[in-house]
Amino acid sequence: MKVIRTVNELTSITKELKQQQQSIGFVPTMGFLHEGHTTLMDESKKYAEVLIASIFVNPLQFGPNEDFERYPRNEERDLEMAEAHGVDYLFLPTVEEMYPVRSTVTVSVHNRTDVLCGRSRPGHFDGVATVLTKLFHLTKADFAFFGLKDAQQVAVVEGLVDDFNFDTTIIAVPTVREIDGLAKSSRNVYLSEQERDEAVHLYKSLQVGKQLIIDGERNTDMIREKVKNYIYANTSGRIDYVEILAFPSLTETEQLNQQVIIALAVQFSKARLIDNVIVDLQRTLPKASV
Amino acid sequence: MKVIRTVNELTSITKELKQQQQSIGFVPTMGFLHEGHTTLMDESKKYAEVLIASIFVNPLQFGPNEDFERYPRNEERDLEMAEAHGVDYLFLPTVEEMYPVRSTVTVSVHNRTDVLCGRSRPGHFDGVATVLTKLFHLTKADFAFFGLKDAQQVAVVEGLVDDFNFDTTIIAVPTVREIDGLAKSSRNVYLSEQERDEAVHLYKSLQVGKQLIIDGERNTDMIREKVKNYIYANTSGRIDYVEILAFPSLTETEQLNQQVIIALAVQFSKARLIDNVIVDLQRTLPKASV
Repeated sequence: MKVIRTVNELTSITKELKQQQQSIGFVPTMGFLHEGHTTLMDESKKYAEVLIASIFVNPLQFGPNEDFERYPRNEERDLEMAEAHGVDYLFLPTVEEMYPVRSTVTVSVHNRTDVLCGRSRPGHFDGVATVLTKLFHLTKADFAFFGLKDAQQVAVVEGLVDDFNFDTTIIAVPTVREIDGLAKSSRNVYLSEQERDEAVHLYKSLQVGKQLIIDGERNTDMIREKVKNYIYANTSGRIDYVEILAFPSLTETEQLNQQVIIALAVQFSKARLIDNVIVDLQRTLPKASV
Repeated sequence: MKVIRTVNELTSITKELKQQQQSIGFVPTMGFLHEGHTTLMDESKKYAEVLIASIFVNPLQFGPNEDFERYPRNEERDLEMAEAHGVDYLFLPTVEEMYPVRSTVTVSVHNRTDVLCGRSRPGHFDGVATVLTKLFHLTKADFAFFGLKDAQQVAVVEGLVDDFNFDTTIIAVPTVREIDGLAKSSRNVYLSEQERDEAVHLYKSLQVGKQLIIDGERNTDMIREKVKNYIYANTSGRIDYVEILAFPSLTETEQLNQQVIIALAVQFSKARLIDNVIVDLQRTLPKASV
């Protein structure tokens, strides 16, 4: 594995890879890697000959009151994990390398941002779309891999690629879960022992909602209420949101005759957890039971 | 010359060209071609094996009170001129082809827009940067060609390419002029006979300013005044602006120890004309006497 710290070096490497007609898979991360990230790396090996990963804590996607400075970093461990999962080139730029002068242009995201986590994080997806535009160009990625745990990010990135005609295919990878169903997250370590036991019910509450849809329930308010009641009955967490939206448009839907997402965010004492399931109602058997 | 009207067809053609390791030059236009455009096409032949041109009147770069609907179009003549100047692929998409659904993302330009023509055209350069982002991806351009007549556009596009790490080299091509020095423009036909005679003095006024700088004058207010006085003394036009800025940053400059632009816009009865010269003070002999 080769570690690359400058834009110039990455540019010349990817230019050469493309001249050699190599296909390139790309996994963008903010580091502090866990199984959610390494699963994306493993997935890339099935699609592309060369795997590039990046570790860059992108200041543009943090709000003024968010945890950019405190965001956890562990470069040594990240290097080991990336190498163990077949990363060929690991791009680790500084902020100055990525944003060298006063910035002239950024990407503005106009849709899909006023729902779910976007509601409480204004500007967040502008920062995500801007850094990904740069990284897609630098890596010349044929495929880029994103976890469905952040389904809103997947939807925004698909919009970015479609609208700007990027020649990069987005692969959405199912959420990696603990054996009991809890979605893997670096934040799970902040749960108390009791909260960890309760947290399994987040995924179970999503299964409750999904089963209602499969059984023919079409009243989204009713489904949301039943999911919320399940969470309140089984956890001590405070519900930030439970939403049912068309996916990937993330628009309100009354018909439930297409692909829909049930997504939630729940605040525990020291950790805010998110999770979701996607239900595809155009298939006899729901496809994305992730 | 092959005429292409869909995004899908262009995408598959440029993918194949890249697999064949062909270098691609790109000339984006809004059609109604004149010698300013064909000079860009001729220039591309010196840099790249394949020449793609586009004709697309981009609604995103027109303000609500501007002339999107009235913008002149002459497809038949454009096809002839493009073919005569060696265009291999002419991309002629509809608005629906370029912006098929509700748009999710656009490019926002934060610098260089509050000077020169940008001051009176809010959002114009956002539209330019958005459509060029799409066209650079679709054409996979190695080189893209822009006329220095719209020097602000050149500066904004260079910012776009730098900030977003596009793998496209921008080639700025000197303004094409009539024998007497008037910059070529489709709008020149709107000048009365008397105005056409006067209009030669726009370029001459820029030469006055340039000579003052070369002779050591460093007071930009003084230089601007002398350029304005020259225009008032020799034309019936109303001055919209005469500005002296660092180029390509388009920032205010007091030192004049670098590359600077003297740019003007003058309103005649039925035509608003723009022109500029760039003076490079770091060279003994000024370089860009365009």
